[in-house]
Amino acid sequence: MSVLIVGSTALDSIKTPKAENPRLLGGSASHAAVAASFFSPVKLIGVVGNDFPSRYINLYKRHGIDLTGLQVLPGKTFHWSGEYEVNMNNRRTLLTELGVFETFTPTLPKTHQSAQFVLLANIAPSLQHHVLNQMRRPRFVAADTMDLWLNIALADLLKLLKRLDLFVLNDSEAHQLTKEDNVFAALKKIHKLGPKYAIIKKGSNGSILSGPRGYFICPAYPLHKLVDPTGAGDSFVGGMMGCLATAKGSIEDNMRRAMIYGSVVASFCCEGFGLNRTTRITLKEIEHRVNELSALTRF
Amino acid sequence: MSVLIVGSTALDSIKTPKAENPRLLGGSASHAAVAASFFSPVKLIGVVGNDFPSRYINLYKRHGIDLTGLQVLPGKTFHWSGEYEVNMNNRRTLLTELGVFETFTPTLPKTHQSAQFVLLANIAPSLQHHVLNQMRRPRFVAADTMDLWLNIALADLLKLLKRLDLFVLNDSEAHQLTKEDNVFAALKKIHKLGPKYAIIKKGSNGSILSGPRGYFICPAYPLHKLVDPTGAGDSFVGGMMGCLATAKGSIEDNMRRAMIYGSVVASFCCEGFGLNRTTRITLKEIEHRVNELSALTRF
Repeated sequence: MSVLIVGSTALDSIKTPKAENPRLLGGSASHAAVAASFFSPVKLIGVVGNDFPSRYINLYKRHGIDLTGLQVLPGKTFHWSGEYEVNMNNRRTLLTELGVFETFTPTLPKTHQSAQFVLLANIAPSLQHHVLNQMRRPRFVAADTMDLWLNIALADLLKLLKRLDLFVLNDSEAHQLTKEDNVFAALKKIHKLGPKYAIIKKGSNGSILSGPRGYFICPAYPLHKLVDPTGAGDSFVGGMMGCLATAKGSIEDNMRRAMIYGSVVASFCCEGFGLNRTTRITLKEIEHRVNELSALTRF
Repeated sequence: MSVLIVGSTALDSIKTPKAENPRLLGGSASHAAVAASFFSPVKLIGVVGNDFPSRYINLYKRHGIDLTGLQVLPGKTFHWSGEYEVNMNNRRTLLTELGVFETFTPTLPKTHQSAQFVLLANIAPSLQHHVLNQMRRPRFVAADTMDLWLNIALADLLKLLKRLDLFVLNDSEAHQLTKEDNVFAALKKIHKLGPKYAIIKKGSNGSILSGPRGYFICPAYPLHKLVDPTGAGDSFVGGMMGCLATAKGSIEDNMRRAMIYGSVVASFCCEGFGLNRTTRITLKEIEHRVNELSALTRF
């Protein structure tokens, strides 16, 4: 089954202590869609300007991503620019030009409305609602978010939480939302806000799932060097949703393994700028790291 | 086989946002010894003053800890006082009174010199050397440390590293020692300094082992509430050494499981002030959490 993914489709200019890369393909939906594409068909919902390089359209296509829902409008593509500090943990935004994204209100193609797996990648909660309103009866709806929406669109986000099967956020966002320092206490509060499943991402410390079968402690793949962590969280949730959409059996049965696959795709994402490494992954490489993670956690 | 443990034996006055507890039994050796005692006989090397409460001597004895190597000297017991911030992650030292610890230079009883497993718990590296110099031919020597020794006794510590089988430290100490932000890069550098095994502790994010068979990602037990994390790291390494000393087979075969047991004892430690919770653990409770950790990480 295919995954419908909505989120930002952007050009990212990323500076790290070691290098500077202007106008890479980026955005939450781009990272999530490419990650999901290794496992299932993907329908992308997004908008770009007429300055969007055709090589990026071709990149989506090479990954078999259905672009019927990608609008190309006169104007500029959403452009984000950020800089990482030496330790690669802290990043600051240098520039955000919304461009055509400012008025983005997608109307879903009929063929897209019956998708069973929906990923509302990081984007304004109002837009996540807007897309979800057009879906017929999805089997599984997941959403990601960012600190910005907790600051400026909390009411919309809280309404969204009641419509989700899975909510994914990072540890600092979980703290911001729940005022809990403890990850497990935060997860408990998040369930009370709606979703049956919740995942708190902790970067290189992996992630924690809380669901009907309790917790799952999902490891991150050991990386000796981070080239660019931008999009790793989107790759994680994208890879995970792609796996869930493809796997036979119940969501609950497949959840843990899907997270491991997501974690592995995210590890590759960190090894290159933008999508440079992710787009070159082979399924064999993914399986190899999944097996390694299994061996690294067995006792 | 028994574990010989040297480190601090102290009175800890601990303040958290919720409570204040004066003159608890504390110190790296106390925590490590009680933790190890669940799995193997323990020989404690330490010093206390004649103000040391007899109830704490009885506590050691109840855990079957051999106190032949515990000196009781005229003067005051080492007293440490610290305060935790609201999030329980940061703590600041309010007071350090060394007392009889200032001139501590233990002479090991003959019976102790042939111990096969030696834990040099957090204490000045010169004292760790001093104890190790008196050991005959230990099978496995592990040491822990703290930021203080990296600051004021780095040369001694670096010499010690060449004499160890296992070096244990936390993530911020690993960064301080190696200047590496990345845990795996730091582990690589630590091996070059001597030890065959290295473990970086990451608090609630578990720990990472690096050894001849590669990495092991060791989870922390999910705790919803931290009462007092003081001594958790010492409990971890103590529990681990107790398991290694008891287990049949090679160190390498037992290392991962020993870490899991250490991690479980550390989780109990965090649930009470000082050793209040640790001293009440049953083996059945330990086994239960070990099984839970196994279930929480399986995929």
